[in-house]
Amino acid sequence: MLWFDGVLQEGTRAAFDLADRGLTLGDGVFDTALARDGRIVLEDAHIARLVDAAARLGFPLDPAEIREAMRAVAGAHPRAAIRTNATRGAGPRGLAPPAEPRPCLWASAAPLADSFACAPLRLHPTEIRRNDTSPASRLKTLGYLDAVLAAGEARARGFDEALFRNTQGRVACAGTGNVFALFGTRLVTPPLSEGVLPGIVRAEILARAGDWGFVPSEQALMPADLIRAEAVFVTNSLRILSPVRAIGTTAYAAHPATGILAAGLNAAMDG
Amino acid sequence: MLWFDGVLQEGTRAAFDLADRGLTLGDGVFDTALARDGRIVLEDAHIARLVDAAARLGFPLDPAEIREAMRAVAGAHPRAAIRTNATRGAGPRGLAPPAEPRPCLWASAAPLADSFACAPLRLHPTEIRRNDTSPASRLKTLGYLDAVLAAGEARARGFDEALFRNTQGRVACAGTGNVFALFGTRLVTPPLSEGVLPGIVRAEILARAGDWGFVPSEQALMPADLIRAEAVFVTNSLRILSPVRAIGTTAYAAHPATGILAAGLNAAMDG
Repeated sequence: MLWFDGVLQEGTRAAFDLADRGLTLGDGVFDTALARDGRIVLEDAHIARLVDAAARLGFPLDPAEIREAMRAVAGAHPRAAIRTNATRGAGPRGLAPPAEPRPCLWASAAPLADSFACAPLRLHPTEIRRNDTSPASRLKTLGYLDAVLAAGEARARGFDEALFRNTQGRVACAGTGNVFALFGTRLVTPPLSEGVLPGIVRAEILARAGDWGFVPSEQALMPADLIRAEAVFVTNSLRILSPVRAIGTTAYAAHPATGILAAGLNAAMDG
Repeated sequence: MLWFDGVLQEGTRAAFDLADRGLTLGDGVFDTALARDGRIVLEDAHIARLVDAAARLGFPLDPAEIREAMRAVAGAHPRAAIRTNATRGAGPRGLAPPAEPRPCLWASAAPLADSFACAPLRLHPTEIRRNDTSPASRLKTLGYLDAVLAAGEARARGFDEALFRNTQGRVACAGTGNVFALFGTRLVTPPLSEGVLPGIVRAEILARAGDWGFVPSEQALMPADLIRAEAVFVTNSLRILSPVRAIGTTAYAAHPATGILAAGLNAAMDG
C-alpha cells in the first residue's frame, strides 16, 4: 500500500519524475516507523526527525502532511513497517539544487512478523567505514548502499548484520540500527558526532533508561570496549532492542538487562 | 527527453516503481556522457563502465540495451549531456536484494552549453572526506549527497566545486571529476584505490598522454603536492579538461599544457 501525492493506492508504481533528485543524487531522507493495529509508535518523534533531516539538507517538509501520509498506510497490516520518504524533488542536470525546491513525499507499508522485534543478532565487523566526516552520516538519507554492501558481506559469512566503525576506527553503528554496550549498570552508545543516526529508540533509551535502573550515556566506544561489554544491543524502530549474540568471533551470553530494557521500551511505546 | 522501459517520451515523468532500490537505498549506478550532433563520445567505454559497475553491485545489464537507450536520446540537442541510469530494480523491505533482480534502465538528455567544456574552475577543499574504505567510492553510484553538500558549501564560499581528500588525508577527486596534477612533464592522478571513480577521460589521459609528450601515472597525492604542482586539472566527460585556477587560497596561472591536453583529448573523442 502506497500514499503518494495525496492519494492512497494499491501497489507501488506511480507517476514519478525521474529527474527527482532523490533518485538521481540520493538527495532525500526517509523514516522507518512501526505501526501496531493502525497506530504509529512514537509518531511525533518520527515526524520531527524527518522534518529536521530535510531542513538540514535545506528543504522544508510539512509535519501535517507527513502525519497524513503515515497514518494513511498505518492500518494496512496489524503490525507494519511504515517507510516515509521525502526528496528535494526534481531538479535540472548537475549538483546545484533548484532555487525553489518542490519536495516530494510518499509513504508505504509492509507487513512485519511479530518475531522480528527483539530477535538476537550476530554482527560482522565490516572494513567499510561509516563516514563520520559527512553530515549525511547523521541523517537517514536515501544513500544506503554501503549498508547494503556490508549486509551482503555479513550474510555471506553467516552473520545477520554488519557492524560499522567510523573513519577514526571507533564503533559507529550496525547496518540498520544504533549500538549500545552494557558495563555494569552503564549503558553506553556512541554520540551522533561519531557518524551515527539519531535513532528514535536510541533517544528513548537515553531519556528513560535512568528510570529502569541504568546509567545511560553517549560516549565514544572502541571495538575493544565492545569485547569487554557484558551485553551489546542493536536498536531501531522495528527491531526495538535486539540482543547481540556475537560480534565476529566474540560471543555474548543472554543477559537479564535485555528483558528489563525491552519491557521498558514496550511500555514507552504504548504511551 | 527520456528513454524508459523501451519507450522514448517527452518530459521526465514515468510509471516508476517506488519500491525500486535505486530510489529507496541508492542501489544503482549511472553514467554521464557527452553527445555531439547525436553521437555519443567514447560510447563503448561508457557502456563498458556502466555494465562493470552494475556487475560489481551484483546485477546484470545488457550492453545492447544501454546503447539503445543512450542513442535514443543522443540527438535531442546538438551538444547534450546524456545520463544513463541503472538500478537493481524493486525489492521487498530491508537491505537484502531480491534473489532475482529485475534491473531498471533509463536515459535522459539535457542541453549543454559549448562554454561548459574546459571552463576554468576554482576548488574549495571540503572537510567531507571521500570514503575510500567503501567499494562504492570507486563506482558511479546514485549516492551523490556528499558531493551535493560539498558543492553547496563551495558555492557559498565563492568557489565552483569541491575538492575531496580521502579518509587518509590524501587527494581523492573533485565533486564531479578526477584530478590531475602536472610536475614538469609528469601528469599524476590518484589511483582508484584512493576512492575515486574510473573516469572515462581519466582513462583516456592515462592511455594517450604519453603520445602528447607527458608521462602519465597513477600515484597517491598529498594536498601539499597539489600546492607545488605547476598545473592542476579536473576531468570528466562533460567538462573534458578544466584547468584549476585556485584550490582554496592557492592560485594557479594558465599553463600551456592545458591546450596540448585539450587538443589531444578532442582528437581522441572524435576518433
